[in-house]
Amino acid sequence: MNYKILVINGPNLNLLGQREKEIYGTATLEEINKDLKVMALEKGIDIEFFQSNHEGALIDKIHSARGDADYLLINAAAYTHYSIAIYDALKAVKIPFIEVHLSNVDAREPFRQNSLLSPIAAGKICGLGGLSYKMALLAACEILLGENEEQDAR
Amino acid sequence: MNYKILVINGPNLNLLGQREKEIYGTATLEEINKDLKVMALEKGIDIEFFQSNHEGALIDKIHSARGDADYLLINAAAYTHYSIAIYDALKAVKIPFIEVHLSNVDAREPFRQNSLLSPIAAGKICGLGGLSYKMALLAACEILLGENEEQDAR
Amino acid sequence: MNYKILVINGPNLNLLGQREKEIYGTATLEEINKDLKVMALEKGIDIEFFQSNHEGALIDKIHSARGDADYLLINAAAYTHYSIAIYDALKAVKIPFIEVHLSNVDAREPFRQNSLLSPIAAGKICGLGGLSYKMALLAACEILLGENEEQDAR
Amino acid sequence: MNYKILVINGPNLNLLGQREKEIYGTATLEEINKDLKVMALEKGIDIEFFQSNHEGALIDKIHSARGDADYLLINAAAYTHYSIAIYDALKAVKIPFIEVHLSNVDAREPFRQNSLLSPIAAGKICGLGGLSYKMALLAACEILLGENEEQDAR
Amino acid sequence: MNYKILVINGPNLNLLGQREKEIYGTATLEEINKDLKVMALEKGIDIEFFQSNHEGALIDKIHSARGDADYLLINAAAYTHYSIAIYDALKAVKIPFIEVHLSNVDAREPFRQNSLLSPIAAGKICGLGGLSYKMALLAACEILLGENEEQDAR
Amino acid sequence: MNYKILVINGPNLNLLGQREKEIYGTATLEEINKDLKVMALEKGIDIEFFQSNHEGALIDKIHSARGDADYLLINAAAYTHYSIAIYDALKAVKIPFIEVHLSNVDAREPFRQNSLLSPIAAGKICGLGGLSYKMALLAACEILLGENEEQDAR
Amino acid sequence: MNYKILVINGPNLNLLGQREKEIYGTATLEEINKDLKVMALEKGIDIEFFQSNHEGALIDKIHSARGDADYLLINAAAYTHYSIAIYDALKAVKIPFIEVHLSNVDAREPFRQNSLLSPIAAGKICGLGGLSYKMALLAACEILLGENEEQDAR
Amino acid sequence: MNYKILVINGPNLNLLGQREKEIYGTATLEEINKDLKVMALEKGIDIEFFQSNHEGALIDKIHSARGDADYLLINAAAYTHYSIAIYDALKAVKIPFIEVHLSNVDAREPFRQNSLLSPIAAGKICGLGGLSYKMALLAACEILLGENEEQDAR
Amino acid sequence: MNYKILVINGPNLNLLGQREKEIYGTATLEEINKDLKVMALEKGIDIEFFQSNHEGALIDKIHSARGDADYLLINAAAYTHYSIAIYDALKAVKIPFIEVHLSNVDAREPFRQNSLLSPIAAGKICGLGGLSYKMALLAACEILLGENEEQDAR
Amino acid sequence: MNYKILVINGPNLNLLGQREKEIYGTATLEEINKDLKVMALEKGIDIEFFQSNHEGALIDKIHSARGDADYLLINAAAYTHYSIAIYDALKAVKIPFIEVHLSNVDAREPFRQNSLLSPIAAGKICGLGGLSYKMALLAACEILLGENEEQDAR
Amino acid sequence: MNYKILVINGPNLNLLGQREKEIYGTATLEEINKDLKVMALEKGIDIEFFQSNHEGALIDKIHSARGDADYLLINAAAYTHYSIAIYDALKAVKIPFIEVHLSNVDAREPFRQNSLLSPIAAGKICGLGGLSYKMALLAACEILLGENEEQDAR
Amino acid sequence: MNYKILVINGPNLNLLGQREKEIYGTATLEEINKDLKVMALEKGIDIEFFQSNHEGALIDKIHSARGDADYLLINAAAYTHYSIAIYDALKAVKIPFIEVHLSNVDAREPFRQNSLLSPIAAGKICGLGGLSYKMALLAACEILLGENEEQDAR
Repeated sequence: MNYKILVINGPNLNLLGQREKEIYGTATLEEINKDLKVMALEKGIDIEFFQSNHEGALIDKIHSARGDADYLLINAAAYTHYSIAIYDALKAVKIPFIEVHLSNVDAREPFRQNSLLSPIAAGKICGLGGLSYKMALLAACEILLGENEEQDAR
Repeated sequence: MNYKILVINGPNLNLLGQREKEIYGTATLEEINKDLKVMALEKGIDIEFFQSNHEGALIDKIHSARGDADYLLINAAAYTHYSIAIYDALKAVKIPFIEVHLSNVDAREPFRQNSLLSPIAAGKICGLGGLSYKMALLAACEILLGENEEQDAR
Repeated sequence: MNYKILVINGPNLNLLGQREKEIYGTATLEEINKDLKVMALEKGIDIEFFQSNHEGALIDKIHSARGDADYLLINAAAYTHYSIAIYDALKAVKIPFIEVHLSNVDAREPFRQNSLLSPIAAGKICGLGGLSYKMALLAACEILLGENEEQDAR
Repeated sequence: MNYKILVINGPNLNLLGQREKEIYGTATLEEINKDLKVMALEKGIDIEFFQSNHEGALIDKIHSARGDADYLLINAAAYTHYSIAIYDALKAVKIPFIEVHLSNVDAREPFRQNSLLSPIAAGKICGLGGLSYKMALLAACEILLGENEEQDAR
Repeated sequence: MNYKILVINGPNLNLLGQREKEIYGTATLEEINKDLKVMALEKGIDIEFFQSNHEGALIDKIHSARGDADYLLINAAAYTHYSIAIYDALKAVKIPFIEVHLSNVDAREPFRQNSLLSPIAAGKICGLGGLSYKMALLAACEILLGENEEQDAR
Repeated sequence: MNYKILVINGPNLNLLGQREKEIYGTATLEEINKDLKVMALEKGIDIEFFQSNHEGALIDKIHSARGDADYLLINAAAYTHYSIAIYDALKAVKIPFIEVHLSNVDAREPFRQNSLLSPIAAGKICGLGGLSYKMALLAACEILLGENEEQDAR
Repeated sequence: MNYKILVINGPNLNLLGQREKEIYGTATLEEINKDLKVMALEKGIDIEFFQSNHEGALIDKIHSARGDADYLLINAAAYTHYSIAIYDALKAVKIPFIEVHLSNVDAREPFRQNSLLSPIAAGKICGLGGLSYKMALLAACEILLGENEEQDAR
Repeated sequence: MNYKILVINGPNLNLLGQREKEIYGTATLEEINKDLKVMALEKGIDIEFFQSNHEGALIDKIHSARGDADYLLINAAAYTHYSIAIYDALKAVKIPFIEVHLSNVDAREPFRQNSLLSPIAAGKICGLGGLSYKMALLAACEILLGENEEQDAR
Repeated sequence: MNYKILVINGPNLNLLGQREKEIYGTATLEEINKDLKVMALEKGIDIEFFQSNHEGALIDKIHSARGDADYLLINAAAYTHYSIAIYDALKAVKIPFIEVHLSNVDAREPFRQNSLLSPIAAGKICGLGGLSYKMALLAACEILLGENEEQDAR
Repeated sequence: MNYKILVINGPNLNLLGQREKEIYGTATLEEINKDLKVMALEKGIDIEFFQSNHEGALIDKIHSARGDADYLLINAAAYTHYSIAIYDALKAVKIPFIEVHLSNVDAREPFRQNSLLSPIAAGKICGLGGLSYKMALLAACEILLGENEEQDAR
Repeated sequence: MNYKILVINGPNLNLLGQREKEIYGTATLEEINKDLKVMALEKGIDIEFFQSNHEGALIDKIHSARGDADYLLINAAAYTHYSIAIYDALKAVKIPFIEVHLSNVDAREPFRQNSLLSPIAAGKICGLGGLSYKMALLAACEILLGENEEQDAR
Repeated sequence: MNYKILVINGPNLNLLGQREKEIYGTATLEEINKDLKVMALEKGIDIEFFQSNHEGALIDKIHSARGDADYLLINAAAYTHYSIAIYDALKAVKIPFIEVHLSNVDAREPFRQNSLLSPIAAGKICGLGGLSYKMALLAACEILLGENEEQDAR
């Protein structure tokens, strides 16, 4: 049976490529996802995508990932900074995840500099635009496929 | 002429693989560097490594990278959190860099949660052990070699 | 006509008994609710249960309780700490409520130590696992059924 | 073609006129909207109303206003103070908006004194009860219809 | 006998239209006042204007308004943020007032985001340039002339 | 041999029923204790009461409870908020305890909102007047008598 | 029957005149009390003195003053700054009191600048050495004997 | 030659007896001053009164008191809390002064709880209405006339 | 036509040389001004002096300097730390200025360590007594007379 | 024997004229030093220059200045804001110094607004580019050569 | 006559060796005191021991040490962190003392990291278990017996 | 084989006995070290001394102590308060250490009151001048030589 990675995107990321392009780039979420799909296929790993502007829907999705997904890539966008409920959901399901951000959140508004999710994430990649997702996917694949030994010791 | 990437490691990283293995993993800095060398070779990119426990030596090295390196991967370790001098050096030389950390700094001591370097970094990868460096190198290669179009729009 | 008590549970409590058992215990929400139902029946009081991970759905439910429920038992879980909207909803409908928590929230993460709801609650019971709900139900019954005179003077 | 103004009301405002009348007044949201409709009609401007207790639904509505509405009047109620997601949505769609509040938020609980939306609003009107909406509509009309020259210089 | 509205402008507003036009617009205070005069005349309400750079002179004027003016429109400019003395004067004379600002003060320097006057103001209008004054005058007229019933319930 | 519960009341609670009745109710401490005695008798559990205004006397009593009492109900009143010495005493004797308050401390002065004892309490019941003690006693009995299975998992 | 004033002195004031004379002066507490006794005698008012280093003893004394003393002069010394228990005792007995300090507490250590008792005191006199007590006694006499009419309006 | 005491009153105190009587009492400043005049006359001490709403005028008056007044009674009202300029003036002229307040400033708005003047005052009397001034005058007289020996040791 | 420099001194500086000489030195403001006049004369630059204790008068003077003075030297004394109004005036007139202080403000009271004016000053010279003014004048002359090339690049 | 002034420059100042010219100007450190040398020569004062990126090297140099230099001009750059070690070194050697900065540090990043060195500096000159050094040198010369009498009183 | 050292132990230290042994060690207070007695005997110094859980009793003891003890060793335990009254007592009696702690207080709860007593202690020894007391006694002996010359210069 | 203790001294301690003698005493570091050498000799323990002003050199030395020294005595001086790098080095090498300070750091500048090293130190001795080192050495010897049993339980 294949490993499965679930990519979860939070509020306003459906507008990607259409809004504030100087911050988030011109690629749409669909284009990024298509690239990720190709990469996952190459690695022989299943991949699923989910986006919602609703905090509750994101929580429901995280819950349903239990027993279904082996790794999560999560860009909770604005919810990163105040949704204790998503933090609780991730802690509850215990699926390892990498926190992803397109922009360099540390270089923006002060309220964007605190991430509730970081302390329970396996890792964090941000500031590299669409590359943030790709690198996160690559890292998750290496960890799942055991191609990377020193990871075990982390 | 080839692109060149300089990998800079700050204080105590020379002890990697020998100290606090539950946090930093069992691979030594030499082993990580060897892996990075192989990866860079494959991409046709020059790579150089530098480690020092001396804040001043790190600054001197960053200065000397002007006109020499095209991209930096920096794990400033403890200095990440208080060395305004290294921040100034990086701002002065204007070479783009990715901030790298082995451990998930956001899950550790409070004084480790503020990074002076993040606001001026191109991106940041942390928490993935040796994979943090590898993903950073891969991302830097993609950016330098133009293999990644959407990056331009970031 | 009978008094009616509405028990409202917030995000992630649907996973009760399945997640972080060292914090929340092994009983599922259904098991706790069954116990509460028995207790309410004995007291001759109607009881209804509602759980949602959606902040908006919780607000809608609180609104609909006006003219329907006489007392609320609320465990708003993560929303306890940041949902001004639920605070506003409870203030608007003016139904007295007891704030309930399974775990001792004061012994956990700092962001869990501020409760927006406490200042407008009639009372608060926490840290006693499933017993927290039972004691809250018992107290609400005593208050509604007038079995407890000194309560009036509170 | 006519200009169109979208009036968005956040959580608990559906209870207007029924709750905490000493703070919010006795007029219901429907009555206020009816007045606004009349005023818009007089100015020859289309007007639409939307209310929801769901943060996600408010974000979805803001997204759908792109290319549809020319100006927004927003009373995000409780979400004003913590919904970075709504802030992001408004920043993303780039439709100018006036922030409206019935009550004088600065005279109430401390947590109500910080508005995330203010820094990106065109203007802000609060404390005047139903008049807050009317004045905001009037101002938006003047701005859209160019009846007010000095506005351009703002 | 007519109602009378007193418009009080604080420090540096005498330079309006001559300084920092990108923030405050190109209209001079005289031009704004002329517009307000016309509007008041139409409503059958007396209007008086006062501007001073002296905190003490503003206090003296507020004192003298007792028994003379029925409503105040106040743009205390810089004094908004630190003059407890003006706050005390307004509290002492008990004349209702609307706080007015040309610019969106919440989008500027941090020290401009705290208003001492807001908690005792009837309402607040800001960010709309000269329109801020006009809307404030209109609102005051409606309140004084009783054209607006729901205002009573505020 | 019977289980024994010790009820400890801190400073000013000897005035109960005589002071600030709108906050603390009209029942005296003696009346509350009499009710608790009846309840304990029914459960077949020994109960002892202690009240003092002296921090040192409360500490001495807590020390002497070692090997004597099986559970504590503690309302440390004002000392709740600053007596690290009582906190240390409770931590030292390791007898489980429920923190009790008559009033809703979260709705009162800011300095009353921090409880030193909460992080080491088994649970906390507050705001329910005399009912707070009764519910706490009931809960303690259930825990001691093993009538409540899910408690074990807490 | 005569009015009675109780003068309560807190910890370390028994050393008055013997310690840190540059701060507290050379008069002993006995000498100050003798002067106060003479003044009270002249006014026809009973006076009693109490000093203790024990927080609990001070609380007990305040309790026993109910129905006995008509006014209190209190120098709680160090306890002024952290004894919520004494604050509660004074609030409970509801006897009006003037807070007295020999030294100018605002000119000393930062931790001495917050007084828990001030917000519930009738008044406060400090910095005048032994005169602080005398002026406080005089003021209390005037208030009790009704010699001062405008006091009523305070 | 006689000693001379200067009584300085700050902003809004000219409205005394006419505004917020529940806080400041019904006596006007003139009535209080008349009483003080009588008391000073009895003691054989010259007295002068000054009130202004202008910070600069208060500073000018303090300057002119050098070589003229032997003691100051100062109620700087609102300026107490932010006028570093008045603080500097008082420090510069080095005339000893007692800080006076009619109301109990510690029981009011948070911004009124910090006094810039207290650390350099000889003493402070507040909360006693008109009695605050009288007690301050009495204390100043005792200090000037040397009737009070222990004062010297302060 | 000559360049003109305006030297503005704020509150209490009229007492220079007469107060707190250990902090401010023995030279009077007149003596310092005389020295400055001689220096300006040598440079062929007009110079004017203004001192006031009134915040409003300082603002009026700054306004009148528009189109009259080419450079300002400002020692706003106490107003440096809280007068947003003077900050606004300086920002409005857009005349470059050097902030001057006689004493080393950073070595004094905490409230003197924040300067509102520094962020908009061209430069700042402090701690050097009368030399602070002289060096500031010299610098202003060099800048105006173009004797200093590298200044242009600042 | 001649007086000697030592000019110490901290980290990254070796890049002067080559980096961030909009902040630091186009003159190199060598060019500034050459100008300072000429000025010192004219005054008959010896001058020495030292620059290092190493905190320890700067401390060693400050130590060696004891008995060698009579005055220091120090631009500690980034170390200004966190090097308690340099602060200790300067306090230990007790050589008077003027703190110099090219840029207006108060107008930049928040972490640059706190200077550890200011409280122990004789004076401070900043924001004037190369002129900052020149004015500092001039001031130091005047102080050393006794040309400035009022300095003595500082 | 012999020197005398008084060893004062605060609340809960009577439980030493019986509670939280992983923090405080297994030795009882009696055992530690016996060791100290032997050491003092060897040095020819009198030693007395006092322990109390009552803040007031500790203050009374400190008072009575005046003229009796030459040096104090104090472990005020929990009172270290909030008893301004004990701080005042120690300041009043002016007997030099060493602050002692068994555990490393800086490695524990945040509220244990502030010591009121440290700023007025002669020295501080902590974290070394029973050795903390022994080293403190040794140091006190050396200071009293003049065996240590460099101490004089401290 | 003998145990070995390494004594590490940080910045500016090379000036001991020559600077700020009222704080640090008159003994030079050499004199203190000589005394320590004698004491170590008596105990049959090897001792080595290292001092540097360079943070990096201190880190290098700590690294080289692995496998060489059995215990460290560290006075990191100024670096105590901000060198996370030294903290990391000590945590990495895992050699137990006692933190030593000559002066009572808690009685000095606020920035000296936070020690990064304390939470990971075995113990801490400060304020006793040269005795601080001697007591630390004695304690380390007792711990190493097993002369002190209760230490094991710490």
